[in-house]
Amino acid sequence: MEAFSDGVFAIAITLLVLELHSPELEEGQRLWPALLDEWPQFAAYLTSFAILGIMWVNHHSMFRQIQRADRGLMFLNLLLLLWTTLLPFPTSLFAEHLEDDSINANVAAAVYSANLTLAAIAFSMIWWYVLRNHLVEHEMTKSEMRRSLVRYSMGTVIYGATIGISFISAKATLLIVFLLALYYAFEQVRTRD
Amino acid sequence: MEAFSDGVFAIAITLLVLELHSPELEEGQRLWPALLDEWPQFAAYLTSFAILGIMWVNHHSMFRQIQRADRGLMFLNLLLLLWTTLLPFPTSLFAEHLEDDSINANVAAAVYSANLTLAAIAFSMIWWYVLRNHLVEHEMTKSEMRRSLVRYSMGTVIYGATIGISFISAKATLLIVFLLALYYAFEQVRTRD
Amino acid sequence: MEAFSDGVFAIAITLLVLELHSPELEEGQRLWPALLDEWPQFAAYLTSFAILGIMWVNHHSMFRQIQRADRGLMFLNLLLLLWTTLLPFPTSLFAEHLEDDSINANVAAAVYSANLTLAAIAFSMIWWYVLRNHLVEHEMTKSEMRRSLVRYSMGTVIYGATIGISFISAKATLLIVFLLALYYAFEQVRTRD
Amino acid sequence: MEAFSDGVFAIAITLLVLELHSPELEEGQRLWPALLDEWPQFAAYLTSFAILGIMWVNHHSMFRQIQRADRGLMFLNLLLLLWTTLLPFPTSLFAEHLEDDSINANVAAAVYSANLTLAAIAFSMIWWYVLRNHLVEHEMTKSEMRRSLVRYSMGTVIYGATIGISFISAKATLLIVFLLALYYAFEQVRTRD
Repeated sequence: MEAFSDGVFAIAITLLVLELHSPELEEGQRLWPALLDEWPQFAAYLTSFAILGIMWVNHHSMFRQIQRADRGLMFLNLLLLLWTTLLPFPTSLFAEHLEDDSINANVAAAVYSANLTLAAIAFSMIWWYVLRNHLVEHEMTKSEMRRSLVRYSMGTVIYGATIGISFISAKATLLIVFLLALYYAFEQVRTRD
Repeated sequence: MEAFSDGVFAIAITLLVLELHSPELEEGQRLWPALLDEWPQFAAYLTSFAILGIMWVNHHSMFRQIQRADRGLMFLNLLLLLWTTLLPFPTSLFAEHLEDDSINANVAAAVYSANLTLAAIAFSMIWWYVLRNHLVEHEMTKSEMRRSLVRYSMGTVIYGATIGISFISAKATLLIVFLLALYYAFEQVRTRD
Repeated sequence: MEAFSDGVFAIAITLLVLELHSPELEEGQRLWPALLDEWPQFAAYLTSFAILGIMWVNHHSMFRQIQRADRGLMFLNLLLLLWTTLLPFPTSLFAEHLEDDSINANVAAAVYSANLTLAAIAFSMIWWYVLRNHLVEHEMTKSEMRRSLVRYSMGTVIYGATIGISFISAKATLLIVFLLALYYAFEQVRTRD
Repeated sequence: MEAFSDGVFAIAITLLVLELHSPELEEGQRLWPALLDEWPQFAAYLTSFAILGIMWVNHHSMFRQIQRADRGLMFLNLLLLLWTTLLPFPTSLFAEHLEDDSINANVAAAVYSANLTLAAIAFSMIWWYVLRNHLVEHEMTKSEMRRSLVRYSMGTVIYGATIGISFISAKATLLIVFLLALYYAFEQVRTRD
């Protein structure tokens, strides 16, 4: 199951580049400013890359603690992979509408945030299922279980909140999501070596 | 062989997202209703994702029972992978024509169903070949063999029937195929842990 | 090295589907005849799928006989992968021009055949390198070596000949290449279980 | 971690082909000269393929020397994969503008060179991190460490220099980058079997 999941993460993270398009220049137009104008594409690419990277690292360390996988786990994992493989679509949608003056920018940001929230929910469901069916390798006390569940549920709450923030500012949403990914990366490097 | 097959399933399931396109908006058009109008794209995406997911789980549990792979099996497996990798094409065709008023909606549904039927036939052929050449790990009685063959052949019959249903209603076909995938998923979770 | 090569074959074989496009219909045009008109796309898809499938099986059984891989082998293998990953491009070119009345059909067929020939040459080079540097697992007599080299070189001669045939008939070239792939598949099933 | 990285390299190297497009011919136009006119596409494809191939071989031999991977290494590796997966974009940009008469050709060459430089920096950072945290398998003297660091940093300096060369000649940049890849390939075959 891990090989398949690793494959899906690797492909999803690599397919993101297909959403980057060379700017179409008119006669005599300069390439460099045209590339700079495409910054939403690059910002959305970078953010989605960071998120998929963190998700892969998290997935890896979660499944390392699981001693056996049953079919229920397999299908919950497929649910997570559904939101993972879908991400290039809202990424492209977000990049396209980030600078719109209208409500469309907010809608695109909300769709992007909703995708991340659904992925976070799938993560929590997997962990909840794993604990409930005693599929973890090591012994855990009730309070350790509760704490680890709260930990995984935080992502759901935080990404859920970015759906709301989307309707305040699309650009702020992108920035927050990117900073969250960086925070998670550094927090993990610090605490769980 | 399993690593290659896992890779092909992982790639096919991830490539589906490339068939999702952002709606092209006219000046002043709203994004949200335009996205809702694209529901056939998302419904077809979800259905194909579910089918490829189930197929991967089935493939996995089938090949876990096979103790050695000969070249005949390798080429039958390639036949299955042919229909697997092809699926993104009829998925896109189906989504594009689902709401056509003409016979085209039915034709697209039938092409989609035919692809699923061909995959189901390849699955049956693999299992039949495996039983006939005694490539399974464990001992099976004649009646166990017959029952497992019938089980795998059911898919062929059911998906074959959806080719017919396509000419009654394209939308019903999509719904039935999706519900079948859900049914298979739950049935497997229940019976074969 | 095999995991990387398996990955490249799996991806190349799966990317072929991206070259299949839904026919663009005019108002009132029927889908079914439009799909039939696209037969060169499907024929080229099927042929390239068969060739990449055979190449993968061959690659697999060649590398199973190799006991250690040095850097020279690694780079020859990359050369083979270069022609493997390139194949979706001439496949699409061939499909697009197969029915042209002009010399363009022949040129497209020749480009396709040239790609196959270059892959066959890379295969021969790998085997020649492996024999020359005694990287095979088992002992081989001089005459066994010569015979196996001749065997692998046959592909080069045959595919080289299809470059010539391309200038007689593009369609005949596609048919011959497809039949060759089928022949290789059956011959392998028969002789090397 | 290696399986995931291998997957990413395999996918990135295979996705390059999606940037090759059949020439769009006008009525009566010949295919062969139109293909020859597309030489920048093929030259950029070949160069990026060679670079990703070398990077994969280097990545492989670097990680074979690492005995354990911590989270810091995981995230530095993700940084390297970021520049790896991005490469198809500047490759396409470079190919598109290589023959422009304007500064755009130089800008595209510089963007391409900058991507390579960033990848080379990530490579150096990984090696520096590995040495600093004693993650290598075998004992190394101070001077061996220094020499290996200098070796990996050479890439950064050389690719950094090609950013400058980009503003002299885009075509020369492509040629130099390609020759560098060939040089690295042969140098490795010679010295490190």
